[in-house]
Amino acid sequence: MSTDVRVIPLEGIPELTEGDDLGALIAEATVRAGGLADGDVVVVAQKAVSKVEGRLVALAGVTPSPEAVELAGDEGDPRQLEVILREAVRIVRARPPLVIAETRHGFVCASAGVDASNAPSDSVVLLPLDPDASACRIRDRLAELTGIAPGVVVSDSFGRAWRQGTTDVALGVAGFRAVRDLRGTPDASGRELQSTQIAVADEIASAAELAMGKARGIPAAIVRGVDVPLGEGSATDLVMPRSRDMFR
Amino acid sequence: MSTDVRVIPLEGIPELTEGDDLGALIAEATVRAGGLADGDVVVVAQKAVSKVEGRLVALAGVTPSPEAVELAGDEGDPRQLEVILREAVRIVRARPPLVIAETRHGFVCASAGVDASNAPSDSVVLLPLDPDASACRIRDRLAELTGIAPGVVVSDSFGRAWRQGTTDVALGVAGFRAVRDLRGTPDASGRELQSTQIAVADEIASAAELAMGKARGIPAAIVRGVDVPLGEGSATDLVMPRSRDMFR
Repeated sequence: MSTDVRVIPLEGIPELTEGDDLGALIAEATVRAGGLADGDVVVVAQKAVSKVEGRLVALAGVTPSPEAVELAGDEGDPRQLEVILREAVRIVRARPPLVIAETRHGFVCASAGVDASNAPSDSVVLLPLDPDASACRIRDRLAELTGIAPGVVVSDSFGRAWRQGTTDVALGVAGFRAVRDLRGTPDASGRELQSTQIAVADEIASAAELAMGKARGIPAAIVRGVDVPLGEGSATDLVMPRSRDMFR
Repeated sequence: MSTDVRVIPLEGIPELTEGDDLGALIAEATVRAGGLADGDVVVVAQKAVSKVEGRLVALAGVTPSPEAVELAGDEGDPRQLEVILREAVRIVRARPPLVIAETRHGFVCASAGVDASNAPSDSVVLLPLDPDASACRIRDRLAELTGIAPGVVVSDSFGRAWRQGTTDVALGVAGFRAVRDLRGTPDASGRELQSTQIAVADEIASAAELAMGKARGIPAAIVRGVDVPLGEGSATDLVMPRSRDMFR
Protein backbone atom coordinates (compact mmCIF):
# COMPACT_ATOMS: atom_id res chain seq x y z
CA MET A 1 0.00 0.00 0.00
CA SER A 2 1.13 3.51 -0.70
CA THR A 3 0.89 4.48 2.97
CA ASP A 4 3.49 1.92 4.09
CA VAL A 5 6.84 3.12 5.37
CA ARG A 6 9.87 1.09 4.36
CA VAL A 7 13.39 1.09 5.76
CA ILE A 8 15.96 -0.33 3.36
CA PRO A 9 19.49 -0.89 4.71
CA LEU A 10 22.27 0.16 2.35
CA GLU A 11 24.70 -2.72 2.32
CA GLY A 12 28.17 -3.04 0.82
CA ILE A 13 29.58 0.33 1.88
CA PRO A 14 33.24 -0.40 2.73
CA GLU A 15 35.12 0.63 5.88
CA LEU A 16 35.60 4.40 5.56
CA THR A 17 38.61 6.67 5.89
CA GLU A 18 39.30 10.41 5.63
CA GLY A 19 38.59 11.88 2.23
CA ASP A 20 36.41 9.02 0.95
CA ASP A 21 33.59 10.13 -1.33
CA LEU A 22 30.80 9.04 1.00
CA GLY A 23 28.07 10.48 -1.23
CA ALA A 24 29.30 8.38 -4.17
CA LEU A 25 29.57 5.23 -2.04
CA ILE A 26 26.00 5.75 -0.83
CA ALA A 27 24.83 6.43 -4.40
CA GLU A 28 26.29 3.09 -5.52
CA ALA A 29 24.62 1.35 -2.57
CA THR A 30 21.24 2.88 -3.46
CA VAL A 31 21.57 1.47 -6.99
CA ARG A 32 22.22 -2.00 -5.52
CA ALA A 33 19.11 -1.51 -3.35
CA GLY A 34 16.95 -0.79 -6.39
CA GLY A 35 17.47 2.96 -6.70
CA LEU A 36 16.25 6.10 -4.94
CA ALA A 37 12.66 7.33 -5.31
CA ASP A 38 11.22 10.81 -4.95
CA GLY A 39 10.50 11.60 -1.31
CA ASP A 40 13.10 9.17 0.05
CA VAL A 41 15.15 10.09 3.10
CA VAL A 42 18.70 8.72 3.33
CA VAL A 43 19.93 8.24 6.88
CA VAL A 44 23.70 8.14 7.39
CA ALA A 45 25.39 7.20 10.65
CA GLN A 46 27.37 10.02 12.24
CA LYS A 47 30.43 7.82 12.61
CA ALA A 48 30.61 7.29 8.84
CA VAL A 49 30.36 11.04 8.25
CA SER A 50 32.94 11.86 10.92
CA LYS A 51 35.42 9.35 9.53
CA VAL A 52 35.37 10.73 5.97
CA GLU A 53 35.60 14.25 7.40
CA GLY A 54 38.69 13.31 9.42
CA ARG A 55 37.05 13.95 12.78
CA LEU A 56 39.32 11.46 14.58
CA VAL A 57 41.74 12.13 17.40
CA ALA A 58 44.61 9.78 18.27
CA LEU A 59 44.72 9.60 22.05
CA ALA A 60 48.53 9.19 22.03
CA GLY A 61 48.90 12.90 21.25
CA VAL A 62 46.52 14.17 23.94
CA THR A 63 47.76 15.61 27.25
CA PRO A 64 45.01 15.55 29.87
CA SER A 65 44.29 18.60 32.00
CA PRO A 66 43.78 18.26 35.76
CA GLU A 67 40.01 18.58 35.19
CA ALA A 68 40.12 15.67 32.72
CA VAL A 69 42.04 13.55 35.22
CA GLU A 70 39.41 14.29 37.86
CA LEU A 71 36.47 13.51 35.52
CA ALA A 72 38.09 10.24 34.46
CA GLY A 73 38.03 8.88 38.01
CA ASP A 74 39.49 5.43 38.48
CA GLU A 75 37.88 3.83 35.45
CA GLY A 76 38.14 6.39 32.64
CA ASP A 77 40.92 7.36 30.27
CA PRO A 78 41.98 10.95 31.16
CA ARG A 79 43.03 11.56 27.55
CA GLN A 80 39.54 10.68 26.32
CA LEU A 81 38.01 12.95 28.98
CA GLU A 82 40.31 15.74 27.78
CA VAL A 83 38.94 15.35 24.24
CA ILE A 84 35.41 15.39 25.65
CA LEU A 85 36.13 18.63 27.53
CA ARG A 86 37.44 20.23 24.33
CA GLU A 87 34.24 19.23 22.49
CA ALA A 88 31.93 20.44 25.28
CA VAL A 89 30.68 23.96 25.83
CA ARG A 90 29.11 22.92 29.16
CA ILE A 91 29.16 19.89 31.45
CA VAL A 92 25.54 19.07 32.35
CA ARG A 93 26.18 16.11 34.67
CA ALA A 94 29.27 14.19 35.67
CA ARG A 95 29.64 10.86 37.46
CA PRO A 96 33.24 9.82 36.67
CA PRO A 97 33.98 8.58 34.12
CA LEU A 98 30.50 9.30 32.70
CA VAL A 99 29.93 12.85 31.46
CA ILE A 100 26.77 14.37 29.96
CA ALA A 101 27.71 17.52 28.09
CA GLU A 102 26.36 20.15 25.75
CA THR A 103 28.14 20.37 22.41
CA ARG A 104 28.76 23.49 20.37
CA HIS A 105 25.76 22.46 18.24
CA GLY A 106 23.51 22.63 21.33
CA PHE A 107 23.09 18.85 21.64
CA VAL A 108 23.11 17.43 25.16
CA CYS A 109 24.55 13.92 25.07
CA ALA A 110 26.95 11.46 26.66
CA SER A 111 30.66 12.34 26.28
CA ALA A 112 29.84 15.38 24.09
CA GLY A 113 29.44 12.85 21.28
CA VAL A 114 33.02 11.57 21.58
CA ASP A 115 33.04 7.80 21.02
CA ALA A 116 35.64 5.06 20.93
CA SER A 117 33.51 2.17 19.62
CA ASN A 118 33.80 1.45 15.90
CA ALA A 119 36.89 3.71 15.88
CA PRO A 120 40.47 2.80 14.91
CA SER A 121 42.58 1.51 17.78
CA ASP A 122 43.50 4.12 20.44
CA SER A 123 41.49 6.79 18.60
CA VAL A 124 38.17 8.47 19.31
CA VAL A 125 35.65 9.85 16.86
CA LEU A 126 34.20 13.37 17.27
CA LEU A 127 30.89 14.67 15.96
CA PRO A 128 31.02 16.48 12.59
CA LEU A 129 31.74 20.19 12.95
CA ASP A 130 28.52 21.12 11.11
CA PRO A 131 26.24 18.07 10.67
CA ASP A 132 23.64 20.05 8.68
CA ALA A 133 26.36 20.98 6.18
CA SER A 134 27.47 17.33 6.07
CA ALA A 135 23.89 16.30 5.29
CA CYS A 136 23.66 18.97 2.59
CA ARG A 137 26.86 17.82 0.91
CA ILE A 138 25.65 14.21 0.80
CA ARG A 139 22.30 15.34 -0.57
CA ASP A 140 23.97 17.40 -3.31
CA ARG A 141 26.28 14.54 -4.27
CA LEU A 142 23.37 12.07 -4.41
CA ALA A 143 21.39 14.49 -6.58
CA GLU A 144 24.37 14.86 -8.90
CA LEU A 145 24.94 11.10 -9.26
CA THR A 146 21.39 9.71 -9.16
CA GLY A 147 19.20 12.56 -10.38
CA ILE A 148 17.17 12.44 -7.17
CA ALA A 149 17.79 14.79 -4.22
CA PRO A 150 16.60 12.83 -1.18
CA GLY A 151 16.17 14.15 2.30
CA VAL A 152 19.30 13.36 4.31
CA VAL A 153 19.67 12.74 8.04
CA VAL A 154 22.99 12.35 9.86
CA SER A 155 22.10 10.12 12.83
CA ASP A 156 23.61 9.18 16.16
CA SER A 157 22.59 7.08 19.17
CA PHE A 158 21.70 9.24 22.18
CA GLY A 159 20.70 8.25 25.68
CA ARG A 160 17.75 10.02 27.27
CA ALA A 161 17.05 11.42 30.70
CA TRP A 162 14.95 8.99 32.77
CA ARG A 163 14.81 6.29 30.10
CA GLN A 164 17.06 3.30 29.66
CA GLY A 165 18.80 2.60 26.37
CA THR A 166 19.63 4.73 23.37
CA THR A 167 17.49 5.71 20.41
CA ASP A 168 18.89 7.16 17.22
CA VAL A 169 18.29 10.88 16.65
CA ALA A 170 19.11 13.40 13.93
CA LEU A 171 22.27 15.50 14.28
CA GLY A 172 22.07 16.93 10.78
CA VAL A 173 19.16 17.36 8.39
CA ALA A 174 18.89 18.45 4.75
CA GLY A 175 16.01 18.57 2.32
CA PHE A 176 13.05 18.55 4.72
CA ARG A 177 11.97 20.18 7.96
CA ALA A 178 13.08 18.24 11.04
CA VAL A 179 9.96 19.03 13.07
CA ARG A 180 6.36 18.54 11.93
CA ASP A 181 4.32 21.38 13.39
CA LEU A 182 0.67 20.42 13.94
CA ARG A 183 -0.16 23.28 16.29
CA GLY A 184 -3.49 24.77 15.32
CA THR A 185 -4.58 21.80 13.23
CA PRO A 186 -7.60 19.72 14.31
CA ASP A 187 -7.34 16.22 15.79
CA ALA A 188 -9.37 13.27 14.44
CA SER A 189 -12.42 14.49 16.36
CA GLY A 190 -12.14 18.06 15.07
CA ARG A 191 -10.73 19.48 18.28
CA GLU A 192 -7.58 21.56 18.12
CA LEU A 193 -4.43 19.58 18.89
CA GLN A 194 -2.61 20.96 21.89
CA SER A 195 1.18 20.93 21.85
CA THR A 196 1.97 18.88 18.86
CA GLN A 197 5.34 19.27 17.35
CA ILE A 198 6.64 15.93 16.16
CA ALA A 199 10.39 15.38 15.88
CA VAL A 200 9.99 13.55 12.59
CA ALA A 201 13.72 13.59 11.77
CA ASP A 202 14.45 11.86 15.08
CA GLU A 203 11.75 9.27 14.40
CA ILE A 204 13.22 8.67 10.94
CA ALA A 205 16.66 8.18 12.51
CA SER A 206 15.20 5.66 14.98
CA ALA A 207 13.36 3.78 12.24
CA ALA A 208 16.61 3.57 10.26
CA GLU A 209 18.47 2.16 13.27
CA LEU A 210 16.06 -0.78 13.32
CA ALA A 211 17.40 -1.83 9.91
CA MET A 212 21.00 -0.64 10.19
CA GLY A 213 21.83 -2.33 13.45
CA LYS A 214 24.74 -1.38 15.56
CA ALA A 215 27.24 -4.16 15.19
CA ARG A 216 26.47 -5.09 11.62
CA GLY A 217 28.53 -2.34 10.05
CA ILE A 218 25.73 -0.91 7.88
CA PRO A 219 26.21 2.87 7.96
CA ALA A 220 23.18 4.03 5.96
CA ALA A 221 19.57 3.27 5.09
CA ILE A 222 16.76 4.60 2.94
CA VAL A 223 13.51 5.51 4.72
CA ARG A 224 10.73 5.53 2.13
CA GLY A 225 7.09 6.57 2.34
CA VAL A 226 7.22 9.20 5.07
CA ASP A 227 5.25 12.32 4.24
CA VAL A 228 8.04 14.64 5.41
CA PRO A 229 7.36 18.34 6.05
CA LEU A 230 8.67 20.41 3.15
CA GLY A 231 11.42 22.96 3.61
CA GLU A 232 15.19 23.32 3.69
CA GLY A 233 15.57 21.73 7.09
CA SER A 234 18.10 21.90 9.90
CA ALA A 235 18.73 19.82 13.01
CA THR A 236 18.95 23.06 14.98
CA ASP A 237 15.12 22.93 14.96
CA LEU A 238 15.49 19.86 17.21
CA VAL A 239 17.45 21.75 19.86
CA MET A 240 15.14 23.06 22.58
CA PRO A 241 15.43 26.86 22.66
CA ARG A 242 16.92 28.06 25.93
CA SER A 243 13.77 30.07 26.74
CA ARG A 244 11.57 26.95 26.62
CA ASP A 245 14.05 24.54 28.20
CA MET A 246 13.03 23.36 31.65
CA PHE A 247 16.14 21.20 32.12
CA ARG A 248 19.11 23.51 31.58
CA MET B 1 14.79 -7.90 0.60
CA SER B 2 14.44 -9.83 3.81
CA THR B 3 16.36 -7.22 5.80
CA ASP B 4 13.89 -4.44 5.03
CA VAL B 5 11.73 -3.07 7.83
CA ARG B 6 8.14 -2.23 6.94
CA VAL B 7 5.59 -0.17 8.82
CA ILE B 8 2.01 -0.90 7.79
CA PRO B 9 -0.72 1.38 9.19
CA LEU B 10 -3.86 -0.44 10.34
CA GLU B 11 -6.74 1.49 8.84
CA GLY B 12 -10.48 1.24 9.40
CA ILE B 13 -10.46 0.89 13.20
CA PRO B 14 -13.55 2.86 14.34
CA GLU B 15 -13.72 5.51 17.07
CA LEU B 16 -13.34 3.60 20.33
CA THR B 17 -15.30 3.57 23.57
CA GLU B 18 -15.10 1.76 26.92
CA GLY B 19 -15.46 -2.00 26.68
CA ASP B 20 -14.73 -2.27 22.94
CA ASP B 21 -12.86 -5.42 21.97
CA LEU B 22 -9.72 -3.62 20.75
CA GLY B 23 -7.86 -6.88 20.11
CA ALA B 24 -10.62 -8.07 17.78
CA LEU B 25 -10.81 -4.73 15.97
CA ILE B 26 -7.03 -4.83 15.43
CA ALA B 27 -7.23 -8.46 14.28
CA GLU B 28 -9.80 -7.48 11.61
CA ALA B 29 -7.58 -4.58 10.53
CA THR B 30 -4.57 -6.89 10.17
CA VAL B 31 -6.60 -9.13 7.86
CA ARG B 32 -7.46 -6.12 5.70
CA ALA B 33 -3.72 -5.26 5.66
CA GLY B 34 -2.82 -8.72 4.34
CA GLY B 35 -2.49 -10.61 7.62
CA LEU B 36 0.06 -10.89 10.42
CA ALA B 37 3.39 -12.67 9.92
CA ASP B 38 5.67 -14.36 12.42
CA GLY B 39 7.94 -11.81 14.10
CA ASP B 40 5.58 -8.87 13.54
CA VAL B 41 5.19 -6.21 16.21
CA VAL B 42 1.81 -4.50 16.52
CA VAL B 43 2.01 -0.95 17.87
CA VAL B 44 -1.16 0.46 19.46
CA ALA B 45 -1.59 4.10 20.48
CA GLN B 46 -2.01 4.59 24.22
CA LYS B 47 -5.13 6.69 23.70
CA ALA B 48 -6.91 3.80 21.98
CA VAL B 49 -6.01 1.47 24.84
CA SER B 50 -7.00 4.00 27.51
CA LYS B 51 -10.38 4.60 25.87
CA VAL B 52 -11.40 0.93 25.76
CA GLU B 53 -10.16 0.55 29.34
CA GLY B 54 -12.33 3.45 30.47
CA ARG B 55 -9.41 5.60 31.57
CA LEU B 56 -11.30 8.87 31.00
CA VAL B 57 -12.17 11.54 33.50
CA ALA B 58 -14.95 14.08 32.98
CA LEU B 59 -13.60 17.41 34.20
CA ALA B 60 -17.06 18.54 35.36
CA GLY B 61 -16.79 16.22 38.36
CA VAL B 62 -13.31 17.31 39.45
CA THR B 63 -12.74 19.75 42.33
CA PRO B 64 -9.28 21.32 42.11
CA SER B 65 -7.05 21.50 45.17
CA PRO B 66 -5.20 24.74 46.01
CA GLU B 67 -2.01 23.16 44.58
CA ALA B 68 -3.81 22.47 41.29
CA VAL B 69 -5.03 26.06 41.14
CA GLU B 70 -1.47 27.29 41.66
CA LEU B 71 0.00 24.95 39.02
CA ALA B 72 -2.66 25.99 36.51
CA GLY B 73 -1.53 29.61 36.58
CA ASP B 74 -3.51 32.01 34.41
CA GLU B 75 -3.66 29.78 31.33
CA GLY B 76 -4.37 26.28 32.62
CA ASP B 77 -7.54 24.50 33.71
CA PRO B 78 -7.23 23.84 37.47
CA ARG B 79 -9.44 20.74 37.13
CA GLN B 80 -7.05 19.26 34.57
CA LEU B 81 -4.07 20.06 36.83
CA GLU B 82 -5.91 18.30 39.67
CA VAL B 83 -6.20 15.15 37.55
CA ILE B 84 -2.50 15.44 36.69
CA LEU B 85 -1.59 15.69 40.38
CA ARG B 86 -3.62 12.56 41.12
CA GLU B 87 -1.76 10.68 38.36
CA ALA B 88 1.68 11.90 39.46
CA VAL B 89 3.88 10.40 42.14
CA ARG B 90 6.32 13.32 41.84
CA ILE B 91 6.43 16.70 40.09
CA VAL B 92 9.78 16.94 38.29
CA ARG B 93 9.42 20.47 36.86
CA ALA B 94 6.60 22.99 36.79
CA ARG B 95 6.15 26.15 34.76
CA PRO B 96 2.41 26.87 35.02
CA PRO B 97 0.42 25.47 33.36
CA LEU B 98 3.12 23.07 32.09
CA VAL B 99 4.03 20.21 34.44
CA ILE B 100 6.59 17.43 33.94
CA ALA B 101 5.80 14.60 36.32
CA GLU B 102 6.72 11.05 37.18
CA THR B 103 3.87 8.56 36.89
CA ARG B 104 3.28 5.50 39.08
CA HIS B 105 4.84 3.45 36.26
CA GLY B 106 8.10 5.43 36.58
CA PHE B 107 7.66 7.36 33.34
CA VAL B 108 8.68 11.02 33.39
CA CYS B 109 6.51 12.95 30.95
CA ALA B 110 4.40 16.04 30.38
CA SER B 111 1.21 16.23 32.44
CA ALA B 112 1.80 12.74 33.92
CA GLY B 113 0.42 11.46 30.62
CA VAL B 114 -2.95 13.20 31.06
CA ASP B 115 -4.11 14.50 27.68
CA ALA B 116 -7.14 16.35 26.35
CA SER B 117 -6.49 16.05 22.60
CA ASN B 118 -8.39 13.30 20.80
CA ALA B 119 -10.57 13.01 23.91
CA PRO B 120 -14.35 13.49 24.23
CA SER B 121 -15.39 17.06 24.99
CA ASP B 122 -14.52 18.31 28.50
CA SER B 123 -12.80 15.01 29.31
CA VAL B 124 -9.17 14.00 29.68
CA VAL B 125 -7.57 10.65 28.98
CA LEU B 126 -5.26 8.99 31.53
CA LEU B 127 -2.52 6.44 30.87
CA PRO B 128 -3.52 2.77 31.26
CA LEU B 129 -3.09 1.51 34.83
CA ASP B 130 -0.75 -1.27 33.68
CA PRO B 131 0.34 -0.79 30.04
CA ASP B 132 2.35 -4.05 30.00
CA ALA B 133 -0.81 -5.93 30.98
CA SER B 134 -2.74 -4.04 28.28
CA ALA B 135 -0.13 -5.10 25.70
CA CYS B 136 -0.34 -8.71 26.93
CA ARG B 137 -4.12 -8.80 26.62
CA ILE B 138 -3.98 -7.49 23.04
CA ARG B 139 -1.28 -10.03 22.20
CA ASP B 140 -3.33 -12.90 23.62
CA ARG B 141 -6.47 -11.79 21.76
CA LEU B 142 -4.55 -11.48 18.47
CA ALA B 143 -3.06 -14.95 18.99
CA GLU B 144 -6.52 -16.35 19.66
CA LEU B 145 -8.09 -14.74 16.58
CA THR B 146 -5.27 -14.89 14.02
CA GLY B 147 -3.10 -17.82 15.16
CA ILE B 148 -0.07 -15.52 15.38
CA ALA B 149 1.14 -13.98 18.65
CA PRO B 150 2.90 -10.78 17.59
CA GLY B 151 4.98 -8.54 19.77
CA VAL B 152 2.81 -5.69 21.05
CA VAL B 153 3.81 -2.14 22.00
CA VAL B 154 1.49 0.40 23.62
CA SER B 155 2.90 3.74 22.43
CA ASP B 156 2.63 7.38 23.40
CA SER B 157 4.22 10.67 22.29
CA PHE B 158 6.73 11.99 24.83
CA GLY B 159 8.75 15.17 24.83
CA ARG B 160 12.43 14.95 25.71
CA ALA B 161 14.74 17.03 27.85
CA TRP B 162 16.83 19.41 25.69
CA ARG B 163 15.22 18.38 22.40
CA GLN B 164 12.31 19.96 20.61
CA GLY B 165 9.30 17.94 19.53
CA THR B 166 7.91 14.60 20.60
CA THR B 167 8.89 11.10 19.55
CA ASP B 168 6.75 8.06 20.20
CA VAL B 169 7.97 5.68 22.91
CA ALA B 170 6.79 2.40 24.41
CA LEU B 171 4.64 2.49 27.57
CA GLY B 172 3.80 -1.20 27.47
CA VAL B 173 5.55 -4.14 25.82
CA ALA B 174 4.61 -7.80 25.37
CA GLY B 175 6.22 -10.65 23.47
CA PHE B 176 9.80 -9.33 23.13
CA ARG B 177 12.41 -7.61 25.25
CA ALA B 178 12.18 -3.81 25.11
CA VAL B 179 15.95 -3.23 25.27
CA ARG B 180 18.55 -4.85 23.03
CA ASP B 181 21.63 -5.45 25.15
CA LEU B 182 24.83 -5.46 23.10
CA ARG B 183 27.22 -5.02 26.02
CA GLY B 184 30.13 -7.36 25.62
CA THR B 185 29.53 -8.01 21.91
CA PRO B 186 32.12 -6.86 19.36
CA ASP B 187 31.62 -3.90 17.02
CA ALA B 188 32.14 -4.16 13.26
CA SER B 189 35.92 -3.85 13.75
CA GLY B 190 36.02 -6.56 16.42
CA ARG B 191 36.40 -4.16 19.34
CA GLU B 192 34.07 -4.50 22.27
CA LEU B 193 31.10 -2.13 22.12
CA GLN B 194 31.01 0.20 25.09
CA SER B 195 27.65 1.12 26.54
CA THR B 196 25.26 -0.24 24.05
CA GLN B 197 21.78 -0.88 25.16
CA ILE B 198 19.33 0.01 22.43
CA ALA B 199 15.77 0.97 23.34
CA VAL B 200 14.38 -1.07 20.46
CA ALA B 201 10.75 -0.86 21.67
CA ASP B 202 10.99 2.94 21.68
CA GLU B 203 12.46 2.91 18.17
CA ILE B 204 9.64 0.62 17.02
CA ALA B 205 7.10 3.04 18.52
CA SER B 206 8.76 5.95 16.68
CA ALA B 207 8.82 4.04 13.40
CA ALA B 208 5.12 3.28 13.79
CA GLU B 209 4.32 6.94 14.39
CA LEU B 210 5.74 7.77 10.98
CA ALA B 211 2.95 5.72 9.41
CA MET B 212 0.16 6.27 11.94
CA GLY B 213 0.30 10.03 11.98
CA LYS B 214 -1.23 12.08 14.70
CA ALA B 215 -4.29 13.70 13.19
CA ARG B 216 -5.26 10.92 10.81
CA GLY B 217 -6.99 8.79 13.43
CA ILE B 218 -5.00 5.61 12.76
CA PRO B 219 -4.45 4.03 16.18
CA ALA B 220 -2.28 1.04 15.26
CA ALA B 221 0.39 -0.23 12.87
CA ILE B 222 2.35 -3.38 12.13
CA VAL B 223 6.16 -3.10 12.26
CA ARG B 224 7.60 -5.99 10.27
CA GLY B 225 11.15 -7.21 9.78
CA VAL B 226 12.78 -6.09 13.04
CA ASP B 227 14.94 -8.75 14.61
CA VAL B 228 13.53 -8.15 18.09
CA PRO B 229 15.30 -9.51 21.18
CA LEU B 230 13.50 -12.61 22.43
CA GLY B 231 11.88 -12.74 25.84
CA GLU B 232 8.67 -11.91 27.65
CA GLY B 233 9.28 -8.18 27.66
CA SER B 234 8.20 -5.25 29.79
CA ALA B 235 8.35 -1.50 29.39
CA THR B 236 9.74 -1.29 32.91
CA ASP B 237 13.09 -2.19 31.28
CA LEU B 238 12.89 1.26 29.63
CA VAL B 239 12.67 3.10 32.94
CA MET B 240 16.11 4.21 34.09
CA PRO B 241 16.82 2.58 37.45
CA ARG B 242 17.09 5.14 40.23
CA SER B 243 20.69 4.10 40.97
CA ARG B 244 21.83 4.93 37.41
CA ASP B 245 19.65 8.00 36.90
CA MET B 246 21.64 11.24 36.71
CA PHE B 247 18.53 13.41 36.29
CA ARG B 248 16.28 12.60 39.23
